[in-house]
Amino acid sequence: MGRSLTERKLIMLPGPTNVPDRVMQAMITPITGHRGAEFHKLYEEIKENLKYVFQTQNDVFVLTSSGTGGIECAVNNLVNPGEKVLVPIFGVFSERLSDEVRRRGGIPVELSLPWGTAPKASEIREIIEREGDLKAIFMVYNETSTGVTARELPEIGKIAEENNLLLIVDAISILGGDKLPVDEWNIDMCITGSQKCLACPPGLAMVSVSQKAWEKIEKTEKKLMYFDLTRMKEFALKKETPFTPALPIFWALNEALKIIREEGLEKRIERHRRCAQAFYDAVEAYGLTVFPREKEIRSNTVIAINIPENVEDGKVRQIMREKYKVLIAGGMGKLKGKIFRIGCMGIISPAEVFITVNALGNALKEVGYDLSVEKGLEAAKKHFES
Amino acid sequence: MGRSLTERKLIMLPGPTNVPDRVMQAMITPITGHRGAEFHKLYEEIKENLKYVFQTQNDVFVLTSSGTGGIECAVNNLVNPGEKVLVPIFGVFSERLSDEVRRRGGIPVELSLPWGTAPKASEIREIIEREGDLKAIFMVYNETSTGVTARELPEIGKIAEENNLLLIVDAISILGGDKLPVDEWNIDMCITGSQKCLACPPGLAMVSVSQKAWEKIEKTEKKLMYFDLTRMKEFALKKETPFTPALPIFWALNEALKIIREEGLEKRIERHRRCAQAFYDAVEAYGLTVFPREKEIRSNTVIAINIPENVEDGKVRQIMREKYKVLIAGGMGKLKGKIFRIGCMGIISPAEVFITVNALGNALKEVGYDLSVEKGLEAAKKHFES
Repeated sequence: MGRSLTERKLIMLPGPTNVPDRVMQAMITPITGHRGAEFHKLYEEIKENLKYVFQTQNDVFVLTSSGTGGIECAVNNLVNPGEKVLVPIFGVFSERLSDEVRRRGGIPVELSLPWGTAPKASEIREIIEREGDLKAIFMVYNETSTGVTARELPEIGKIAEENNLLLIVDAISILGGDKLPVDEWNIDMCITGSQKCLACPPGLAMVSVSQKAWEKIEKTEKKLMYFDLTRMKEFALKKETPFTPALPIFWALNEALKIIREEGLEKRIERHRRCAQAFYDAVEAYGLTVFPREKEIRSNTVIAINIPENVEDGKVRQIMREKYKVLIAGGMGKLKGKIFRIGCMGIISPAEVFITVNALGNALKEVGYDLSVEKGLEAAKKHFES
Repeated sequence: MGRSLTERKLIMLPGPTNVPDRVMQAMITPITGHRGAEFHKLYEEIKENLKYVFQTQNDVFVLTSSGTGGIECAVNNLVNPGEKVLVPIFGVFSERLSDEVRRRGGIPVELSLPWGTAPKASEIREIIEREGDLKAIFMVYNETSTGVTARELPEIGKIAEENNLLLIVDAISILGGDKLPVDEWNIDMCITGSQKCLACPPGLAMVSVSQKAWEKIEKTEKKLMYFDLTRMKEFALKKETPFTPALPIFWALNEALKIIREEGLEKRIERHRRCAQAFYDAVEAYGLTVFPREKEIRSNTVIAINIPENVEDGKVRQIMREKYKVLIAGGMGKLKGKIFRIGCMGIISPAEVFITVNALGNALKEVGYDLSVEKGLEAAKKHFES
């Protein structure tokens, strides 16, 4: 018996996510050299469309790595050993950011916040004034582990500029799914991954680099080679990457970016927002509570829901996976067993919302939690009526 | 006019190389989570088949990066700042290896050799005795830039063991295409890439790690995160990677490794050897000379040929590409414009040899170089008669 490895499931994880067939098919474009005209054209198209999605005039680069490779690239190029940088900590990925700074020999000045909350501009300003000798702010915009978006990022961008600090933003689980105008918000380096809101398979990280960031990069010592931005800049002149790129994922990314241009960024963001609100209302109609209490900071791309008492995380997700063929994620780190996380990313539409809300409601009922599936579906539906 | 981006060419580059349709198709396996049962099964299959290809009982890991990422992984995990390691230099990739050691803060003790030659065991022994405090030998087995294989590697492995030095081997352009029994030759860390002799698309690096290497890794300071082997070892217990893997290329690699098992490693190596010998005899029948003079060290996976005087590199390769639809490479670094390089990798068979020999011969004739295409083809054919 057993089910086929290739049977299709609805991937409602906070990445990787569902990938349109057009994008999957692009991967089987016949292999070609990465030092020739075909690749140059591909490189140029990707670059232009990435600038559109990042809303930037800065340089953009595609790295053959996961999103964490993109983070390592930022830290390795922008932090010298011994330098102090501010890192707000409000989940697993901000902890990872701080760990990266420490491994590089930098000194992370941590603003430790309760998980489920977001850093406030006033707190950032306070630390900057207290410390005096900070070089940069490294922060997560969307905490994939808690379903929180740091909504005061634009104000933090202004503070960074006023204090001549670099602002580096981990936007891995949000770029392309929520507002993030890189230049307007003074972001010197923005990092994202292919397998989240861009609806592309995993394997690539994308980064933008401002002029202010370049000035710092030139003064940074002993950078490792693989993520060396100076080398990437050199090769970019020839429309090439310094090392062999993951060609099939480059083709996929190109197609995924074309789809974003066809839809339009604004419409895409509104679609994510609407689907997220439908999720939040549906789970509240089920009597569940959302992990981030404050409505304002709830993510439009990662929906984090508290697991009710006496409900077993693994059992619910197993029923959803096996009976309803819907994959959602559990909690990470200290939230393991305490929350569900649903990815609201990429191709997300009313259909995926209804299927997921239905699967979650029924699975919860099966483990003995009392709710009305109809109420959940009704609450979601209201968002798609106008 | 212009030709379609998806039109198929014969890729005779020293990587990326031609990929079988079975392997390409594996990439469009529907996306799944990388923390679930499907991935665990995939991980396990890849691991077992990699051990077969590496001929090792050591741990093996798959990195989402190019081969250079694998090199950086080795250097970052095995070299502490201030430590001296021996690096024989005989081409672009051995220079890169030395550069990686330097960037990490290590001290590369270089054995500089003329390009087109290979390091000898006696030279290695001499330096070890002279220096006294070396920690490791980092060396390239197959210099992709010069078409040279360091044939004394087995003896160097013995010397490394006698002197209690770690032996780290860059086998990116050779593993799966020539003899390389990792355990038998005392190799502590062996690095390869997906897009060379394994006939898989680019995007992954693979490394093996010996017990002796693990002992050193545990004592290595401030390792960066993305290539941290300690973290990979931890996640390997769950059959997972620490960070999101390039799923489509993992599926492709799995299929590529299955093909290798079906053929058998020994047969595969013999096929590469025979095709390489056919190439060497054919180009010599054209009156061309091979870049490495010494026959013994000529690579079976990268064929490096001197470009005759008055023949323009770019023109010949353009004719081959446009008229004969065959891609070969030129020289790198100081060999730019001086040599052609042909990849003899992966799916290589008599058919690819004949097509390439024919294309090269005719292109050379078109630019005015006097030769007999028939003689070249005949010389190649002799190798496929028994």
